[in-house]
Amino acid sequence: MKDKVVPRTLSGFMELMPQEQILFNKLKKIIEDVYSSYGFYPIDTPVIESSEVLLAKAGGETEKQIYRFNKGDNDLSLRFDLTVPLAKYVASRYNDLIFPFKRYQIGKVFRGERAQKGRFREFYQCDIDVIGNETLSLMYDCEIPSIIYDIFKNLNIGDFIIRINNRKILSGFFESLDLTNMITEILRIIDKIDKIGIDNVREELINLKIPTDKIDKIINFITIEGTNEEKINKLLESDIKNDIFNEGVNELNFVIKNLKSLNMNENNYEIDLTIARGLDYYTGTVYETNLKDYPSLGSVCSGGRYDNLASYYTDKKLPGVGISIGLTRLFYQLCESNILNKEENSVADITVLPLTYNYEYVFNFVRELRKKGLKTDVVYLDKLKQLIKYADRQKTPYVIIIGDDEIQKEIAILKNMKTGKQIEVTINNVVDVYEQDLNNKM
Amino acid sequence: MKDKVVPRTLSGFMELMPQEQILFNKLKKIIEDVYSSYGFYPIDTPVIESSEVLLAKAGGETEKQIYRFNKGDNDLSLRFDLTVPLAKYVASRYNDLIFPFKRYQIGKVFRGERAQKGRFREFYQCDIDVIGNETLSLMYDCEIPSIIYDIFKNLNIGDFIIRINNRKILSGFFESLDLTNMITEILRIIDKIDKIGIDNVREELINLKIPTDKIDKIINFITIEGTNEEKINKLLESDIKNDIFNEGVNELNFVIKNLKSLNMNENNYEIDLTIARGLDYYTGTVYETNLKDYPSLGSVCSGGRYDNLASYYTDKKLPGVGISIGLTRLFYQLCESNILNKEENSVADITVLPLTYNYEYVFNFVRELRKKGLKTDVVYLDKLKQLIKYADRQKTPYVIIIGDDEIQKEIAILKNMKTGKQIEVTINNVVDVYEQDLNNKM
Repeated sequence: MKDKVVPRTLSGFMELMPQEQILFNKLKKIIEDVYSSYGFYPIDTPVIESSEVLLAKAGGETEKQIYRFNKGDNDLSLRFDLTVPLAKYVASRYNDLIFPFKRYQIGKVFRGERAQKGRFREFYQCDIDVIGNETLSLMYDCEIPSIIYDIFKNLNIGDFIIRINNRKILSGFFESLDLTNMITEILRIIDKIDKIGIDNVREELINLKIPTDKIDKIINFITIEGTNEEKINKLLESDIKNDIFNEGVNELNFVIKNLKSLNMNENNYEIDLTIARGLDYYTGTVYETNLKDYPSLGSVCSGGRYDNLASYYTDKKLPGVGISIGLTRLFYQLCESNILNKEENSVADITVLPLTYNYEYVFNFVRELRKKGLKTDVVYLDKLKQLIKYADRQKTPYVIIIGDDEIQKEIAILKNMKTGKQIEVTINNVVDVYEQDLNNKM
Repeated sequence: MKDKVVPRTLSGFMELMPQEQILFNKLKKIIEDVYSSYGFYPIDTPVIESSEVLLAKAGGETEKQIYRFNKGDNDLSLRFDLTVPLAKYVASRYNDLIFPFKRYQIGKVFRGERAQKGRFREFYQCDIDVIGNETLSLMYDCEIPSIIYDIFKNLNIGDFIIRINNRKILSGFFESLDLTNMITEILRIIDKIDKIGIDNVREELINLKIPTDKIDKIINFITIEGTNEEKINKLLESDIKNDIFNEGVNELNFVIKNLKSLNMNENNYEIDLTIARGLDYYTGTVYETNLKDYPSLGSVCSGGRYDNLASYYTDKKLPGVGISIGLTRLFYQLCESNILNKEENSVADITVLPLTYNYEYVFNFVRELRKKGLKTDVVYLDKLKQLIKYADRQKTPYVIIIGDDEIQKEIAILKNMKTGKQIEVTINNVVDVYEQDLNNKM
């Protein structure tokens, strides 16, 4: 006989205890419900793709992290994000899709990063994007913050701020300073401002050999203060002469104005000219989202507008705007920061403990509860002591006990496990009594 | 500049069009809702596991199909089912879990099979199992058919029959015929009866060199006819002297009796002594499920009772009972057989077409609809013609049109796209009018 193998899960792979998983799924469902309430399609692309297709654009650091292997004659890779699969999806189905194409995808992606605390090699991304055919209304740049807003309102994990900028403003501004050939480097430095602070940004700009007067202008520019309206006015009134800059300011103005019409609370969004979103993928509006009480978590939801989703697959111009939430990492951070309580999550609403072999009687109650949408767990264990221990450890808020005495009296005992209160219920009033007690408690 | 790469999806990997995906997700949600209504935990194990752990038990055909590769020093594999991950999960968390441990998992598994029509290399399995610590009540063998029953009632894809047997009955019977050393082969042949027919079963048994009189006994035995009660009575009254056989008959009797108490419709389940479930994994009750009008689809939901979930990881005895639905294949079959209509599935309940730049007015309607849980798609396209085309192609059942005229009159136009009927609505009655029209129609 074979020796036993030690069962274990690889490091860098999140696998949760049952009660933690309940909580994780709740967050995932909130995100999915908001995404779908906006009428976006749920798309599900394969985990495995042809390496040629998946790596059409990739390079450098990303490519090193990819899980790539051969099976038969096929050179295969696991998806490392949900953007390339979206590009593939849209480019290959261009003639059959309806544009603007609104889709979300929630799924695992894979990156063989160096293992470290809070970094995962397999993690959920929750992406939502809208893709236009040749053009895409700027109104979608307004819809995206509205989606972020609904999600973080519903997640209920504390106050948050959506920080909004437009890449054209920065690019145009740097062009006006004759720094066109350094835009990518400068953006990358500015993007780090939250982590390294303003003084280090200045230092790094000096290292780029940018003249001090221009560095002063840059620092002054990105740290413009005031309300959103004041910032917009300063931008509109600035003496910067550059077409890209002006386009960016007009777009930002449009977006901010319409967020107001969307009835979003102004405390939850702000113009922040330091938001650059490192990569050169984004071309217009960009977003980051922070939890106000936990700035150290960094951005928990980011994205932006891009001119061309799938230039490596097609000549069609496919502009889009979207965001991504790295749910696995976010969940980990929320638990580490004690914003979420992993322990107290029961899967069932009610646990039924039969102390009888008259299951027909028991099932009548169970059916009644499930019919009303209550998650009902029935436990079969031989000893009363085992049953009580089970119910205690599951932390189900309510228990129903049915023994032969109860059957005689045509009742069941409903017990509130928090208060210890026990109530006699009948098949006809069990749901009502449960709901009354539940609502009293809250 | 790089040449364009042709975007494509690998063969054997299901990737659906948006409206097909809506339908697929509906089925998945029905299964998940039933699973969770029984108070089972949703578990989510990694796609990637250490090969040593994942292949602790595997061998032969399965091992050849596995996606296995190295990354750094690690020998990794993609999960090929959800049973081994469950065994790993329970064995490694034995001290922290509450038993009986009730879990479901819905996720993709991977098998590098030869590509052929209706076979997938990446497919969803929807598994549900309950695992006991040392012992597990036979009542769970009754709960499982009840879960199958609820799922196929809710899926609403036609009449179905759950076929139930007990492996001990067959094993004991063959023992009583002195065929103990051939049990596995015989079971494997009997298991094919639906596909190859009774005559070929006889033929194959003859090839095993089983004496004709015993073959006759086998054939007569597995084709016992009658109602469930009649079959049970024949088994109880049989002159077969074997302890395993008697145990099996008593278990089957218990399960069938309690299914009645569970109030399941007797047309939807039957004792079928030909159900063997090939592999030697199962040790007691076994289940298969067929769509009555589509027998050629084979079993669409199978499973059973096993004595030992994780013997390759642990000495602990972990008996369990569960089922699995291969959703990707089932969905494919249902579409191929025209049981499902892939085309007519709209993601949104209502599509809003703004023919105005007064978005504040538009958003007031949108918010009202979303607040009531209606999936509301707002489309921004420049031309009226484009908007109409979009709405037509999306097949959204209702459209709301708001132009400046409507704003003047403080109304919106609600259009039923099936009947063509247009109704003037206000912000205060839009939801009510929509619901009235929707219910009239149905």
